[in-house]
Amino acid sequence: MNIGFIGLGTMGKPMAGHLLRAGHRLIVYNRSAARTADWQGNDSVTVVASPAEAAAQSELLFTMLSDDAAVEQVYFGDNGIMAGCRPAKEAAGLLRLVIDCSTIDPNVSIRTAQALEALGVDKLDAPVTGSKPQAEEGVLTFIVGGKRDVFEKVEPILLLMGKKAVYMGGHGAGSIAKLANNMMVATHLVALSESLALLQKAGLDPVKFLEVVAGGGARSGMAEMKGPKIIQADYEPQFMAALMNKDLGLAARLSDALRVPLPAAAAVKQVFQMACNGGHGEEDMSAVYKCYEQWIGTAD
Amino acid sequence: MNIGFIGLGTMGKPMAGHLLRAGHRLIVYNRSAARTADWQGNDSVTVVASPAEAAAQSELLFTMLSDDAAVEQVYFGDNGIMAGCRPAKEAAGLLRLVIDCSTIDPNVSIRTAQALEALGVDKLDAPVTGSKPQAEEGVLTFIVGGKRDVFEKVEPILLLMGKKAVYMGGHGAGSIAKLANNMMVATHLVALSESLALLQKAGLDPVKFLEVVAGGGARSGMAEMKGPKIIQADYEPQFMAALMNKDLGLAARLSDALRVPLPAAAAVKQVFQMACNGGHGEEDMSAVYKCYEQWIGTAD
Repeated sequence: MNIGFIGLGTMGKPMAGHLLRAGHRLIVYNRSAARTADWQGNDSVTVVASPAEAAAQSELLFTMLSDDAAVEQVYFGDNGIMAGCRPAKEAAGLLRLVIDCSTIDPNVSIRTAQALEALGVDKLDAPVTGSKPQAEEGVLTFIVGGKRDVFEKVEPILLLMGKKAVYMGGHGAGSIAKLANNMMVATHLVALSESLALLQKAGLDPVKFLEVVAGGGARSGMAEMKGPKIIQADYEPQFMAALMNKDLGLAARLSDALRVPLPAAAAVKQVFQMACNGGHGEEDMSAVYKCYEQWIGTAD
Repeated sequence: MNIGFIGLGTMGKPMAGHLLRAGHRLIVYNRSAARTADWQGNDSVTVVASPAEAAAQSELLFTMLSDDAAVEQVYFGDNGIMAGCRPAKEAAGLLRLVIDCSTIDPNVSIRTAQALEALGVDKLDAPVTGSKPQAEEGVLTFIVGGKRDVFEKVEPILLLMGKKAVYMGGHGAGSIAKLANNMMVATHLVALSESLALLQKAGLDPVKFLEVVAGGGARSGMAEMKGPKIIQADYEPQFMAALMNKDLGLAARLSDALRVPLPAAAAVKQVFQMACNGGHGEEDMSAVYKCYEQWIGTAD
């Protein structure tokens, strides 16, 4: 199949690679061209100069972008996806389906879906859990919103990049569940950071503590994956703190819109904002620990 | 060996049962006598009328109590452990070691250790991770503070009740690490509650969401163990909300004493206090979800 892929960053590039290895032809676009350089000259990959061209040449089009603004631009901007849909429709509808894997405001997911459906193109919101390593290994989990029958038809293609795809409901449902998921990730990271800081200030060994945590009810994916990295001060980004701060902002807007008070998520958002303000936004999200680390050395 | 056990509640009773099944003789005391009724008439169990008697008749003595006040009373009160140590010492020191498995203020752990050591009796603080099911299955993790050589000698006995024992450092180190561990447990429960409430208010399926969480970085012991119970509204206590509220209060005191700001743990403490004030203190700690559940049905 001719599959378009827009957004070849940390996540998008390995995801597109799985589609290519499965024998699909790729039509790729990235805002900064350097990201597509590796694929220049590959017979199965066409590098195009705009989202509109990607939309015009693809039957199925993925987008994996960093935030609402990027999605707005790529979908609705000059030479955006919407502009590319019209020629496709005139040519008997080459483009059938757009799948947005970006983590964005659910309202933007709904708006892009409505705009595409008005042109006869289906749309799914399908953000993923997992970061760089899971994208590379093809073991992401897709969290899907949109029409159920559309999801069921395309599920085998999602499973080329992931181990699982969970259907959550109509347009925007994938985005909402993704924000709820990331609130948990962020809160678990802050919980880990607070406990590690407290016990290190008390003079205890954080490695031994991770052993305690792993054996009981306090265990978490974050403690397993990020605990040892925090202790080794390895903040090489797998998922940047600034992106998590953005997701927590979206979750706060959803909390406000739905009138569900979330005091812990609110505190966690403030700590991520402090981490970003402290210059750690482009480090891994686990750099939120640096907000606490500074207190360990202070006098009692 | 003659092993004393004081505090035969939800945790203590199954723990003592493992020692009995391993062939040890038990000397048991509980403040409310009903808890020892099952063992009346068992040739390997002596039910005594005071902590002092338990201390006087045991070589090794465990305590598993609910809070600081209970520990103060059992150790330092009339007919308390300290009162029972003197006869033991005069009789060539029958009692060699007291192990307190209660989750309490680390300063109380240190004070009991110093008082016992002054009478020639060793002391360990060894709170556990795991609740009722883990106590019954004998798969607790002990978090140990005190002298390392004392810990190493007694470790095989701890492993009759647990799968692991981690040595954290001197007196009080087990208690500190336990509070840090429980801060994580409580924060994970609140994170789960906030996400479940938000997405249910948005009309999404919490069962599907737990599937998403299980597959990615948001996974946690709490999501696995408590998520399905929350969805089924099963709040049968395995570890009571009031006890977690108490532990969060101790953690807050430690945060204050060590001058380590913990904004997320502070928010989580407030939510647990609300759950207790709402009459859910004697339900399972997962009843903290009830603080959020009330918002799901409200109008948008």
